[in-house]
Amino acid sequence: MSFKATVLTLYPEMFPGHLGTSLAGRAAERGQWSLEAVNIRDFAEDRHRSVDDTPSGGGAGMVLRPDILARAIDAVSADDDRPRLLMSPRGTPLTQARVRALAEGPGAVIVCGRFEGVDQRVIDKRGLEEVSIGDYILSGGEPAALVLLDAVVRVLPGVMGNALSGTHESFEDGLLEHPHYTRPAEWEGEGIPEVLTSGNHAAIDKWRHDEALRLTAERRPDLLAGSGKDAD
Amino acid sequence: MSFKATVLTLYPEMFPGHLGTSLAGRAAERGQWSLEAVNIRDFAEDRHRSVDDTPSGGGAGMVLRPDILARAIDAVSADDDRPRLLMSPRGTPLTQARVRALAEGPGAVIVCGRFEGVDQRVIDKRGLEEVSIGDYILSGGEPAALVLLDAVVRVLPGVMGNALSGTHESFEDGLLEHPHYTRPAEWEGEGIPEVLTSGNHAAIDKWRHDEALRLTAERRPDLLAGSGKDAD
Repeated sequence: MSFKATVLTLYPEMFPGHLGTSLAGRAAERGQWSLEAVNIRDFAEDRHRSVDDTPSGGGAGMVLRPDILARAIDAVSADDDRPRLLMSPRGTPLTQARVRALAEGPGAVIVCGRFEGVDQRVIDKRGLEEVSIGDYILSGGEPAALVLLDAVVRVLPGVMGNALSGTHESFEDGLLEHPHYTRPAEWEGEGIPEVLTSGNHAAIDKWRHDEALRLTAERRPDLLAGSGKDAD
Repeated sequence: MSFKATVLTLYPEMFPGHLGTSLAGRAAERGQWSLEAVNIRDFAEDRHRSVDDTPSGGGAGMVLRPDILARAIDAVSADDDRPRLLMSPRGTPLTQARVRALAEGPGAVIVCGRFEGVDQRVIDKRGLEEVSIGDYILSGGEPAALVLLDAVVRVLPGVMGNALSGTHESFEDGLLEHPHYTRPAEWEGEGIPEVLTSGNHAAIDKWRHDEALRLTAERRPDLLAGSGKDAD
């Protein structure tokens, strides 16, 4: 069973975008996941194919109609139990833990908002889980959906082969990653920290862990708070 | 003077991606911003065009060499004062305030990391500002760069016309956005909150502000902490 993503959007031409190349593109060719982009506009009923209307109570922008979006959702996911996500700056911030949980499931139906927003009733009635990729505003949900899928596809079984094994990555253990160095040994007068060329693996592991703790305490004390980790 | 983005990447074919369509694509056609994707590999010196090497101290993955990346950075930004960003999960989390500050500047040089990481010396010596779009791991910096540019282009002068004026958006005032409703007035047995159809604009404004506070307190108390706002 491979991961099946269905994206509901007004801009199907934005997909697969960068997911069609490199790692994600090769994984799709191997059948490890699939992506279908469905145009919400195909579920409009009038001859202008309109999908939005003015906000109740007034104000700028347009709101996606509940009836049309619900028809689109029902058409693509009536008979499956994939989680239904709505990319939205109001949502729960995406974490690596949520990424891993999604990757272990059957796939996802991802609604991309545009305009001012989406009618609240369809969010409630169709059980849409609002997900935010960060505290900034995008032109729509499409770039956010591409980011979420990039993160998920990367951790699907077999996609990265052994490339992840034994590596320390930011967030995987609640810490930011330690600094990296490679050749040349000296560049613009700067060398590589001596411990890294010592061959002493215990000392290297300790240095990397200490540096990860130092960076996290310096840049993201919020990640350490309440984690039980100690920066000392 | 229009916003000039130069992206340093090993996957120039991922650009402009979704930035070539819709809002951002039309803004680029009007000359309101420009995007140049430069292949870091063009600055390699050996005949295999290698850009990375094994990490000092051992471990999985490969690290981008400082000398080659520095040559690429120098070639595209020797004579300008654009900020130099490195998309990285170790970076400072991107905020709407940083998006607006970038949009007010001359542009950005954006380095996309791949492999295990980038040699720390080039980050230090070339003054790269590490920026994170969220607490999850992507296949590389490219999807993150596309998201950052989408957010920036959207707020460039003239890009959205009057579409933003007078709207309340998540984060712009430190709160998540209130719920939206539009026609039909009744759908699947659910109506629209009465206040929104009352025509009483003061009451509508109050309802929207109260709802924004309620949602923020419920979902993102971290945004309220220390802001001086009161959810009561």
